[in-house]
Amino acid sequence: MTLSDIEIAQQVEMENITKIAEKLGIPATDLELYGNYKAKIKPSTEKKQNGKLILVTAISPTPAGEGKTTTAVGLADALGQIGKKAAIALREPSLGPVFGIKGGAAGGGYAQVVPMEDINLHFTGDFHAISAANNLLSAMLDNHIHQGNALEIDSRQITWKRVVDMNDRQLRHIVDGLQGRLNGVPREDSFEITVASEIMAILCLAADLADLKNRLEKIIVAYSFTGEPITCGDLKAAGAMTALLKDAIKPNLVQTLEQTPAFIHGGPFANIAHGCNSVQATKMALQYADYAVTEAGFGADLGAEKFVDIKCRLADLKPDVAVLVATIRALKMHGGVAKNELATENVAAVIAGLPNLERHLHNLKDNFGLPVVVCINQFPGDTKEELAAVKEACQKRGVTVVLSNVWSKGGAGGIELAEKVVALAETKSKLAFAYEADLSLVAKIETIAKKIYGASGVEFTPVAKRELAKLTELGFSNYPICMAKTQYSFSDNPNLLGAPTDFTITIRSVKVSAGAGFIVALTGNIMTMPGLPKKPAAENIDVDAEGNITGLF
Amino acid sequence: MTLSDIEIAQQVEMENITKIAEKLGIPATDLELYGNYKAKIKPSTEKKQNGKLILVTAISPTPAGEGKTTTAVGLADALGQIGKKAAIALREPSLGPVFGIKGGAAGGGYAQVVPMEDINLHFTGDFHAISAANNLLSAMLDNHIHQGNALEIDSRQITWKRVVDMNDRQLRHIVDGLQGRLNGVPREDSFEITVASEIMAILCLAADLADLKNRLEKIIVAYSFTGEPITCGDLKAAGAMTALLKDAIKPNLVQTLEQTPAFIHGGPFANIAHGCNSVQATKMALQYADYAVTEAGFGADLGAEKFVDIKCRLADLKPDVAVLVATIRALKMHGGVAKNELATENVAAVIAGLPNLERHLHNLKDNFGLPVVVCINQFPGDTKEELAAVKEACQKRGVTVVLSNVWSKGGAGGIELAEKVVALAETKSKLAFAYEADLSLVAKIETIAKKIYGASGVEFTPVAKRELAKLTELGFSNYPICMAKTQYSFSDNPNLLGAPTDFTITIRSVKVSAGAGFIVALTGNIMTMPGLPKKPAAENIDVDAEGNITGLF
Repeated sequence: MTLSDIEIAQQVEMENITKIAEKLGIPATDLELYGNYKAKIKPSTEKKQNGKLILVTAISPTPAGEGKTTTAVGLADALGQIGKKAAIALREPSLGPVFGIKGGAAGGGYAQVVPMEDINLHFTGDFHAISAANNLLSAMLDNHIHQGNALEIDSRQITWKRVVDMNDRQLRHIVDGLQGRLNGVPREDSFEITVASEIMAILCLAADLADLKNRLEKIIVAYSFTGEPITCGDLKAAGAMTALLKDAIKPNLVQTLEQTPAFIHGGPFANIAHGCNSVQATKMALQYADYAVTEAGFGADLGAEKFVDIKCRLADLKPDVAVLVATIRALKMHGGVAKNELATENVAAVIAGLPNLERHLHNLKDNFGLPVVVCINQFPGDTKEELAAVKEACQKRGVTVVLSNVWSKGGAGGIELAEKVVALAETKSKLAFAYEADLSLVAKIETIAKKIYGASGVEFTPVAKRELAKLTELGFSNYPICMAKTQYSFSDNPNLLGAPTDFTITIRSVKVSAGAGFIVALTGNIMTMPGLPKKPAAENIDVDAEGNITGLF
Repeated sequence: MTLSDIEIAQQVEMENITKIAEKLGIPATDLELYGNYKAKIKPSTEKKQNGKLILVTAISPTPAGEGKTTTAVGLADALGQIGKKAAIALREPSLGPVFGIKGGAAGGGYAQVVPMEDINLHFTGDFHAISAANNLLSAMLDNHIHQGNALEIDSRQITWKRVVDMNDRQLRHIVDGLQGRLNGVPREDSFEITVASEIMAILCLAADLADLKNRLEKIIVAYSFTGEPITCGDLKAAGAMTALLKDAIKPNLVQTLEQTPAFIHGGPFANIAHGCNSVQATKMALQYADYAVTEAGFGADLGAEKFVDIKCRLADLKPDVAVLVATIRALKMHGGVAKNELATENVAAVIAGLPNLERHLHNLKDNFGLPVVVCINQFPGDTKEELAAVKEACQKRGVTVVLSNVWSKGGAGGIELAEKVVALAETKSKLAFAYEADLSLVAKIETIAKKIYGASGVEFTPVAKRELAKLTELGFSNYPICMAKTQYSFSDNPNLLGAPTDFTITIRSVKVSAGAGFIVALTGNIMTMPGLPKKPAAENIDVDAEGNITGLF
């Protein structure tokens, strides 16, 4: 009988979080407890980071699943099993999707982070704090217009949206401020899910509370009738917003099923934002552990690229090793096999899918200069011949392939991976960015598209051209680029699997996240407010009289 | 130099919350810590309540201020000073108003509950959990309609609203579900502030987690095209909502400035809901302390009436003493003096205002059968003659008047009050309800209006009559009544101060809170979504680099 993730999680006895902190040598006075199994960690004044940074990334995702988070958790556990002082740094899951289709985002099987119910529900309240800060800014913005609009805000050019941490399509497009002069000023408006808030990206990039406030002040919320940007600072909202975020900015400490310390903090979108956990959590993991395992959202073309070009550039971080996760099933899909035919051995399809893996490998190794190991997250149906095809292809590029079984065995299933990572971490290497910050915005976008995606060129719509000119004029040309592109393909067409060539990327619009500090380049419409399916997962979730949750996954 | 509330609060050294719990004999294993100064308390299996219940209520509020919460906190501290094992049970403040005009709701001066910044911001996340549960239900409701509307919900008759814990008038009246068939179904909609959610009232009345879920299931969210009520249970949402509320249902323990244990839990509106802290918090205070001090919202006509007729009736509670708080300044306003002339001695005005106090006294003593002490919350300008006038009037009714100075002196300023309360608590008394549950809804409303408010009669609008007939037909006639009336007057006209006579109460509409278990009778439009003022308090709130908040009040 196979147990569900929540059943496995509930079977394991957790260690008190004070003991987990002790393992890492975190001073007890730096701990703020949230019950017995969760704590926030105050930033330490001593901030040397001596640990090795391990970035777990993946090939382009397919419906077959890659298991990136599971591999990251299992790797940290395996490092512990071979006697290393390891910690993991991950994103916090979003509440809304838990009630839709998707399960949680805390690993799976025997490689999970716990307490999983808490982590997937309110956790320590970080996302609620972000929602509150986001919506305070909205309320102050509309109140400013209602009270006379001294800043001459053009209500047709408001870029700041309210958020709710719920899959609620009904709020995608609304008209608010209706019913007369006591009830606001009518305008078109919309809600996004909390993780899409720029405040989420800011929280994850902020160095400390003072930097957080500075970044909040810079958020552009609207433009005036004369086209001038209106900021959060203009509305005098940043102080109160920072007050709302003063605890949310502190990383959360929990544990894996094998009691490896896990810093779970922040969770920005991986398309319109940079898609990785907070800089503070990563640095804390590096400060207290010898090996800090982290991951980046989506495939390496998006996740690893942004990890390097946005997060590492800003926070002066450098990965010591990159782990590229793939599955035989996903490679087969990239090789043209349909999802319902994945059970059959198909070496030719694996070989046909390998160019996807190889292009990601090339980016990590040659473009970013990182030591890489390829990790095959093994499934029962994978055959020897299929695995051999992957090994052979990687060998040609001088890259080792290891098999991982952390989903079914926990850390014990990742020993070989851990040993390889430890060996690679001793390699001397130099991180390279995909582009330099002083290139023009257009040149930076073109560089990412050609160098990382393999595109032949970039087309900019007239709207995008106008916006790029405006943002350059406003002084944002030295900002890095955050590409909002489909995760399923190197191209901007989700149906082009494998490693497509001879395609162009179309940039449809461009916007600035002035507080987070990047330019978002959109290749299409990105959905920032999901909806619920016909039968929402919420219908199966229940609690007994003692508070035990069932049906969460 | 006078210190602000936050300055006083920040000067005092708090005791670790585990020590506060020890004072009451709460088992350490029942504590769930939220940092060093906040904890949630698990319900104990042993549930005997042996303490005396002290209800602090007040005359009809005026802009001069009464200091009901401050008096309640100071009384609990004073009981501690005279050697009694005391605790206090209070409502949690709402986040939204903190950024508007109003300060916090955690007492004032030297009679406060701390940590006040936390209590006034996110506290332990209870209100965020309520918002999430409320909005999950909304998302599931609109998703049901979007996915085919099998329940035949009439979208013009949806009574369930989304909430946000923010003063945001822009969301009072909206149209949502716009822009085509992928984005919901267009309809008129509106948001309320979180404390107005029926889930808040339910959380405060629920006996335990199982009762909470039962009550959630009964919530009426809409009516079908044929007029049938559609419930939360019909949408299969109650299990997931209960999962979101599983921690929020546990009372929070904090402390006063004098380290008296304080259970702060829940905060329903006092007009459309019953306006007092959770049943669980009150019972926990009675279980662990010998004297449990609590308060009820607004004046005694609303707060104490609902405390008795809704909360005590449902939860089988009985106050042992009622403290009726008044100020000389407020009595003068009831006697016709304007706010800017309150500094001048005016014995005649005090005497002219006394009928307000006397009608509340009559209700508490004669209608509810409670032993009462009148407490004058003293201000520096009060004169001996003014105080004498109050004492004389009360003496005629056999009621003692004591002076209280807890705002400036803490518990030491309330010793006389505490001693009087202890003496009165030994009185044998029998609680009487204003009405019996089996009266018709109309008769119950008329009884409250005539017996408690002193009205000559009640007028029902045609709408209200229709709604009363419908709710009776649906089987809700045995529910108690929750009057939504102005707090400033015994009548439904906020300008009729003192003790008006020869007035009628007009019931404009009636609705059922089927999960909370009461019928709301509205005498006018009740604002359930506040707005921000021209210069929001948020503009002055700030945080320094160490996380210290300033300008909160």
